Amino acid sequence: MSLSRKVCDALFDYQTLKIVNIGDKKIGLLHRIIQLLILGYILGFVIIFKRGYQQFSTYNSVTTAKVKGVVSTLDYRDEDFVKSVAYPAAYRRIWDVSDLVVPPSEPDAFFVTTNLIITEQVTARCPEELMKDSTCESDSDCEDGRTLLLGHGSQTGSCVAADHPTAHQGVCEIRGWCPVEYDEGPLKGNQALLSGVQNFTVLLKNYIEFPTFRLKLRNIADSQNRSYLQTCVYNPDTHPHCPKFRLGDIINATGHTFNSIAAKGGVVHIVITWNCNFDRHIRYCVPRYDFSRIDDSRAQLGRGWNFRHSHYHNATQRTLFKAYGITFRVAVSARGGKLNLLPLAINIGSGLGLLAVAKVVCDFVVLYCHSNRELYKQHKVRFVEKGGRKRRATISITV
Amino acid sequence: MSLSRKVCDALFDYQTLKIVNIGDKKIGLLHRIIQLLILGYILGFVIIFKRGYQQFSTYNSVTTAKVKGVVSTLDYRDEDFVKSVAYPAAYRRIWDVSDLVVPPSEPDAFFVTTNLIITEQVTARCPEELMKDSTCESDSDCEDGRTLLLGHGSQTGSCVAADHPTAHQGVCEIRGWCPVEYDEGPLKGNQALLSGVQNFTVLLKNYIEFPTFRLKLRNIADSQNRSYLQTCVYNPDTHPHCPKFRLGDIINATGHTFNSIAAKGGVVHIVITWNCNFDRHIRYCVPRYDFSRIDDSRAQLGRGWNFRHSHYHNATQRTLFKAYGITFRVAVSARGGKLNLLPLAINIGSGLGLLAVAKVVCDFVVLYCHSNRELYKQHKVRFVEKGGRKRRATISITV
Amino acid sequence: MSLSRKVCDALFDYQTLKIVNIGDKKIGLLHRIIQLLILGYILGFVIIFKRGYQQFSTYNSVTTAKVKGVVSTLDYRDEDFVKSVAYPAAYRRIWDVSDLVVPPSEPDAFFVTTNLIITEQVTARCPEELMKDSTCESDSDCEDGRTLLLGHGSQTGSCVAADHPTAHQGVCEIRGWCPVEYDEGPLKGNQALLSGVQNFTVLLKNYIEFPTFRLKLRNIADSQNRSYLQTCVYNPDTHPHCPKFRLGDIINATGHTFNSIAAKGGVVHIVITWNCNFDRHIRYCVPRYDFSRIDDSRAQLGRGWNFRHSHYHNATQRTLFKAYGITFRVAVSARGGKLNLLPLAINIGSGLGLLAVAKVVCDFVVLYCHSNRELYKQHKVRFVEKGGRKRRATISITV
Repeated sequence: MSLSRKVCDALFDYQTLKIVNIGDKKIGLLHRIIQLLILGYILGFVIIFKRGYQQFSTYNSVTTAKVKGVVSTLDYRDEDFVKSVAYPAAYRRIWDVSDLVVPPSEPDAFFVTTNLIITEQVTARCPEELMKDSTCESDSDCEDGRTLLLGHGSQTGSCVAADHPTAHQGVCEIRGWCPVEYDEGPLKGNQALLSGVQNFTVLLKNYIEFPTFRLKLRNIADSQNRSYLQTCVYNPDTHPHCPKFRLGDIINATGHTFNSIAAKGGVVHIVITWNCNFDRHIRYCVPRYDFSRIDDSRAQLGRGWNFRHSHYHNATQRTLFKAYGITFRVAVSARGGKLNLLPLAINIGSGLGLLAVAKVVCDFVVLYCHSNRELYKQHKVRFVEKGGRKRRATISITV
Repeated sequence: MSLSRKVCDALFDYQTLKIVNIGDKKIGLLHRIIQLLILGYILGFVIIFKRGYQQFSTYNSVTTAKVKGVVSTLDYRDEDFVKSVAYPAAYRRIWDVSDLVVPPSEPDAFFVTTNLIITEQVTARCPEELMKDSTCESDSDCEDGRTLLLGHGSQTGSCVAADHPTAHQGVCEIRGWCPVEYDEGPLKGNQALLSGVQNFTVLLKNYIEFPTFRLKLRNIADSQNRSYLQTCVYNPDTHPHCPKFRLGDIINATGHTFNSIAAKGGVVHIVITWNCNFDRHIRYCVPRYDFSRIDDSRAQLGRGWNFRHSHYHNATQRTLFKAYGITFRVAVSARGGKLNLLPLAINIGSGLGLLAVAKVVCDFVVLYCHSNRELYKQHKVRFVEKGGRKRRATISITV
Repeated sequence: MSLSRKVCDALFDYQTLKIVNIGDKKIGLLHRIIQLLILGYILGFVIIFKRGYQQFSTYNSVTTAKVKGVVSTLDYRDEDFVKSVAYPAAYRRIWDVSDLVVPPSEPDAFFVTTNLIITEQVTARCPEELMKDSTCESDSDCEDGRTLLLGHGSQTGSCVAADHPTAHQGVCEIRGWCPVEYDEGPLKGNQALLSGVQNFTVLLKNYIEFPTFRLKLRNIADSQNRSYLQTCVYNPDTHPHCPKFRLGDIINATGHTFNSIAAKGGVVHIVITWNCNFDRHIRYCVPRYDFSRIDDSRAQLGRGWNFRHSHYHNATQRTLFKAYGITFRVAVSARGGKLNLLPLAINIGSGLGLLAVAKVVCDFVVLYCHSNRELYKQHKVRFVEKGGRKRRATISITV
């Protein structure tokens, strides 16, 4: 043969695998059952359930939150407060969103105050908070210029009477923001001052973009009319697509009561899930909302959630707020796919590869477990030794 | 044979597959074409286009934004304003970054005010905003202590004249922050008070870390000199690597005009894309910037973006700002890879698996479609029955 | 044969591949070595190291940060300050968390001020900052109403003396917030005013949820008792599970010193890594903390991190703060898996597919490199021509 003929043969002869057809229906059935299981997994799970015939897009998402509502604490009486003499006037007023949402805007999150401790402070000298390291019996226990890590200022060196109704110990005097905060909620018992914020509503505007398909979607459907959107309130059963949520409903959906979370604050997760099949009409692509309280209500350290912020009136005067409240964090989880032949081919190709597993199992049965294994082995395997001679065991095989 | 010999044979004999070489050039060609398609996909798409020969790293990224600029509204005249009698003085001043960027720092985001409604408020009694549930004809329509959800305070029980230039209805009086906000932009028409912020610049400092390769990168190239960086402004064509952006340019790049977004606010996405091949010199690893307006300019509910924040002068006096503006959110999308033999081997291995698909197709042709299918079947398949006898159909096959 | 018999045969005959057993120990050994490498990769790397026998869950995570501490700058003397005449009184006071953490709450992040420039401002007329475009020799160099982009207000048209100790040039007068900020840290040298914040502590509460397994975890172990948690401070060696961190320790763990970062600010990444095997007891599922300074300490443009915020005392009076400080961003990286037969089967199946690579390599050796290649080729390959005749080269093969 010429070289070109040889190359042509090597390139364009079709080399297929020699097959031994074993007419044993039991093994055939086993083979088909395993194949069916694998095919069921590939077709049912990978292709259909996981939508393996689709190409999926990455996504970008942004959520803005607009809280609305007003709550009045004018009705509280002196006997409702723990310290009726202190600042009950400061606690008796009208609170609106600008007072209670701090900071006024956060990316994909919002905080609403549910309980408050207000302290009007000036830079001055006053007794330190009563705590382990601040007590003293005489001035010699206090050191001028010393600052306790958990204290509130720099010690003056004087020992003065503690500013606490039940304590009669001495504490070191400090320079700093005075008076120091008296760390107890304004209301008696485990009540929240602003439990009325459960009636506040929040409008969540969630924008999502699937760059691969050049699609932009919102959680506010175009088909909903303006007046519906202005008056509706989300309800998982009756109004599942309304983007306005009552805060109390959100907390209830987490399995907690608003009053149990309001006194000490907490952290709530709002998960917006987009599970979209862009082979169907886009109006079926609507988000689902899930709510869960993510902080532990039985934590031993730092239960709930609070932080301090201040209104500064001038360089030496401020109103300090210890704000307990609920931090809502909005997370988006999305999956949007469209029919695409490439992932379909890949998934089918990988699936065909998996089918080889059926042969591996059946071959094992045929060669090692079957009563006719010697016969099948003779037909399936041809033995060749180096040097061309055949092994004895193989003589009977060759026909 | 001894047992050890048998074990040795079982372990170290090489079992290869018997091949039937079919000298049919058409099937051979079909086989090669399918193989070439699969190889093209593996080599061209998986290995080269998707860089299947590389190991990719996860990444952490942080972006900080520093806005610069100052805008003057001193030139506005009384006739420019909707309510010239109200607070035009408050609107005529110099606005700098500290006035307009609220909150002053946000993680991977920044907000710039473009339009404002300013209301000086004190805690007092005043007429409620004119809305559906607040109108009244006599004091009996108002209930002492009632708080409307979308209202601004707690009703006193009195019915008073509405504080609205065109309305002559009565509304319930409230206790709360007074006067209530008159919800209309300061300027006549659909103009934004602070349209000058389109000349503001923002310096985006984007830090990215690829932990697998222990690499840290920034969007500010070391090779750029200091004076260039201080004076440059990003332009996709002439200055694509300058990290300083004019806000008006960003809005224009989204396909909108600044004036159309400034009056009611909006949400803009800045996507920084790092597509890095660490097998090349690191100086080729530079980010790309993309901008898109993600809120819907034709939304029916809550179009644009605004929120309220206040400056508190003392416990009973505040300046309420309804701030319309643009929230910029910075997202980072990165892909950084380096040559690694393991993913290369895996991808080639999986690719070889896919090649089996070519054989499946050609075998189907050979056994069921080809005119010589009976001959090829005889040579390809050997039939074996239980009990060792061969089926009739197979007699002619065995040589 | 009847049709039903034919269909039954086609469906339930078992077709296995004909194997040629080559009794050559060298090739057998090569085959086994390659198989062992692939098996080692699958079992060792995919199944065991990467836990390929487990199903992994997505996760949601939220982190809150609570900073504690107080720092005093009362000890600074006039000679410590750059401008002793200016506002040393404003710099000499007690600073607490409410003064230094701005904004008071950020999602998965917190900022702590380490250095400050304070400027008391009113809306008035004053000389512009001394910079390239603001200098003038006479009023004709200034234009009434002109606003420089990097300037601080709207020019009045007058040329006045610059307000800078070393400069004797004229600058244009502006209307705006006056006086303009003098951009130099308060302390002499490269010192930070508030270097004492390195003793502040931050309590990081990290909540993580694995929805697939309906598991919620915290970084605060239930087994730790309350008093331990209140007094402990994180240390990678002695207290690796304490959720309270000293800021100075965090900076030291990044390989920098607090004093080097405090003067100009910086950006620090806190990565919380959960690597959990839910087949073991959940108490082994504890997070690891890693810290890295992500901004470049040698950057040419905008080194460090600062921003401006203000306290507004009334409409025409404010205190402007240029706050240098450290922005801490908390990122969570999690991996939680549980035994699941499906991923195990998939990984084993794909692994078996990879084993085919061993055969490809050995077949190449057998057919093209081995000294007995002609013999092996005769036994391995059967040649069939169209029309049923066999090629010459194949005559000796058929037995």
